Amino acid sequence: MARITCNICKMTAQSTNWRCGDCGGLLDWKALPTFDPARIVTEDFSLWRYRALLPVQRRFSLGEGMTPLVQLNLAGARFHAKLEYLNPTGSFKDRGVAVMLNHLAGAGLAAVMDNSSGNAGASLAAYAALAGMRATIYVPKTSAVESKKAHIRAYGGEIIESADLPAQIYAAAKSRTYASHAWNPSFVLGQQTAAWEIWEQLGRRAPDAVAAPVGHGGLFLGMVRGFRGLHAAGLIAAIPCMIAVQSAGVDPIVRAWEAGADTPPTIVRGDSVADGILVDEPVRGRQILRAIADSGGLALRVDNDDILDAQQRMHSRGFMIEATSAVPVAALPQIRERMGDAAELVIALTGSGLKSLSG
Amino acid sequence: MARITCNICKMTAQSTNWRCGDCGGLLDWKALPTFDPARIVTEDFSLWRYRALLPVQRRFSLGEGMTPLVQLNLAGARFHAKLEYLNPTGSFKDRGVAVMLNHLAGAGLAAVMDNSSGNAGASLAAYAALAGMRATIYVPKTSAVESKKAHIRAYGGEIIESADLPAQIYAAAKSRTYASHAWNPSFVLGQQTAAWEIWEQLGRRAPDAVAAPVGHGGLFLGMVRGFRGLHAAGLIAAIPCMIAVQSAGVDPIVRAWEAGADTPPTIVRGDSVADGILVDEPVRGRQILRAIADSGGLALRVDNDDILDAQQRMHSRGFMIEATSAVPVAALPQIRERMGDAAELVIALTGSGLKSLSG
Repeated sequence: MARITCNICKMTAQSTNWRCGDCGGLLDWKALPTFDPARIVTEDFSLWRYRALLPVQRRFSLGEGMTPLVQLNLAGARFHAKLEYLNPTGSFKDRGVAVMLNHLAGAGLAAVMDNSSGNAGASLAAYAALAGMRATIYVPKTSAVESKKAHIRAYGGEIIESADLPAQIYAAAKSRTYASHAWNPSFVLGQQTAAWEIWEQLGRRAPDAVAAPVGHGGLFLGMVRGFRGLHAAGLIAAIPCMIAVQSAGVDPIVRAWEAGADTPPTIVRGDSVADGILVDEPVRGRQILRAIADSGGLALRVDNDDILDAQQRMHSRGFMIEATSAVPVAALPQIRERMGDAAELVIALTGSGLKSLSG
Repeated sequence: MARITCNICKMTAQSTNWRCGDCGGLLDWKALPTFDPARIVTEDFSLWRYRALLPVQRRFSLGEGMTPLVQLNLAGARFHAKLEYLNPTGSFKDRGVAVMLNHLAGAGLAAVMDNSSGNAGASLAAYAALAGMRATIYVPKTSAVESKKAHIRAYGGEIIESADLPAQIYAAAKSRTYASHAWNPSFVLGQQTAAWEIWEQLGRRAPDAVAAPVGHGGLFLGMVRGFRGLHAAGLIAAIPCMIAVQSAGVDPIVRAWEAGADTPPTIVRGDSVADGILVDEPVRGRQILRAIADSGGLALRVDNDDILDAQQRMHSRGFMIEATSAVPVAALPQIRERMGDAAELVIALTGSGLKSLSG
C-alpha cells in the first residue's frame, strides 16, 4: 500500500511531513498503484480522472489539469505545446498544490506555508482559500514581481517578504506545516498527471522528448515519474528523453550535467529574466540529474535575449506565456540540432503572461 | 446542408458576411448537423471534439474549450461554475473567435476587425496572430481598460481608439471584414460548444438553469442554441431556464423583460464596474428575449456593490474572475429566491481576473 518513505534512511514518514524527521532526507511516495488505463475516469475532464491512481482523496478542485496539448511550428521547428499556463491560477503549480492540499486538508491541517517567487505562492493561496485553510507565503525581498504578490493577496494569502530564504522558512517549518513545492512528496505526485495527459492526448503514446524549464524541477520530476509509471505498466516502450532547460544566469543543473557530476554545484546567481526558476540550490537536484541520465536527456542553457525573443515569438502566435515559460522554447535550435527534426517533442509552457500585462 | 441565411428576408448569404447584404438583417447558420453523441471525438480535449457537428473545418487551435465545470457552495447557495475564464486568452470569447476565424481563414481572408472593450479584441488578436491574419481592434476611447489594451497589443493586434462606436466600425465594415462577436453568425456557432460540454460534464444531462452575464449575449445565445440542439436530438427533456444577468447601469434586456417587451428599449448608459457588458444596444436583443421567454428563464439586474462583493467572495475561494464574471454570482440570492434551493444551476464565469492584477 502507498506510503511515504525517506530516500536515505528508508524510514516510513508521517505523510504530512516535508522531510525525514530522522535524518532530514527527501521523502517520496512509494508503492503507488500500478497505472491501469481501465481505472481512468474518462468522464472527468480534470486531473482527478486519475484519482484511482493517486493515494489522495479528492475533496476540492478548481478544475486543475487536462490542459490543452496543441501542435505548432515555430520558424520551421515543430512541437507540441502542453499549455500548463491554462491551469486555474495560471501555472503548472496547480497540479502539485491541488493534490498536496487535498492530502494535507484530509489530514486535518488548518494552515500551510511555502516560499515562492510568485506562481507557487498564488497556487497555494488559492487552494488554501478553497479548502478554508490559512496560507502564508514567504517571498524573496528583492526579486518577487509586484503583480504576483497582488495575485497571492487577492486569494487572501498572507505575504512575508524575506531577505533570508530559504533559511527563514526552514526555521519556521519546525513548528508549522511547510507545503513546499520543492520538498513535499505529495506535490511531485500531482505533477505526474501532466505526463499521463500527454500520453492520452497523443493517442496513448509517449513523445520522443519532453522539454521544460527547471528551477526546483517539480514539473520535470513529476513528468519523469508519470512516464516511469506508464513504462512500468508496459504502456510505453521507453521514457522520453527528458530535457531540462535553465537560464544562463541560474544554471546549476546544466553545469553539473556538462561536468558529468551527479550533484549540482554551488553557484553564484547571475541575472535572469526567468523569474520563476531563480533556484541556485534545487532541492531535488540529484533526482533531476539522474532522470536526465536515465532517459538519455539533455540539460541546456539559454540567455536572456533568446528567452525574451522566444517569448515575443510565442505571443505573436497567440500564446500568452511568461518569460520563464519561454526558456525551453528558446532552446529549440539546440534541441533540434542534437535530436534532429524528426523527433516528436513536447514543450511544457508553465506560466501565464496574463499576470504581468503592463497597463 | 448547413448554410447562412438572413433571419428577415431569408436569403442565403455569403458565409463570411456579418449581416445580410440585401436587407441588413441578422444572419444565422441553418440546417446544421443533428447533434449525435456518436460523432463526438472523445479523445480530443478541446471544443474540436464536436468538429463533426460544426460546419467549419479545424485549421488551427490555441486549445479552446473543454473548460472545467466545478461545484461550489457560496454562503449556502450551491452551483456548478463553468470556468470559461480558463480559455486560452482568458475569456469565453475564444470559443466563438476560434470557430469564426477558422471559417474566415478557410475562406482566404487575410485581415479582420472588431470593436471590443477588451476580451473579444484580445481573443481576435490572438487567433489572427496564430492564423497569420492581421487584426484591427476598435476600442471605446473612454472605457477601455489599459491592461486589456496591452493584452491586444502583445498579440500584435492594432488598436484604434474611437469615440464614435459602433458607427465608426459599421462604416469601416463596408470595405473590410468585420469579425464581430455580436453580429457574425460563426461566432455564435462556436459558443454552442459550452452547452455541449456542460451536458457531457454533468454525465449527459442538462441542468435546471444556466446563468450568464449578458452584454451582446454571445455566450448566452450560443448556449441556448447548443441546448436546443441537444433537445432536438432527444437527448434532454427541456432547455434549461436561461437566466440573463446585467448590471444595474446597463440593463436593456432586464428592462424589456420586466416590461414584457420583445425588443430592448433605448437606454441611457449608467455607471457600471462590469466593463465587459457595457452594451446599451445588444445586436441580438430580440433573440435573447425570446430565449428567456421560451425557456421560462429570468432577466435580473445587480448593482455595483453586489458585483464587487461577489467578485471578492469568489477570489477568496480561489476563483480569479474579473468583475463582469461576478455579475451572475451576485444574482444568486435572487435566483435562489425565484427558483428554490433544489434547482441545479450552472453559472458561466466568463473572464479572467489575471488581466487586471494591480502590481
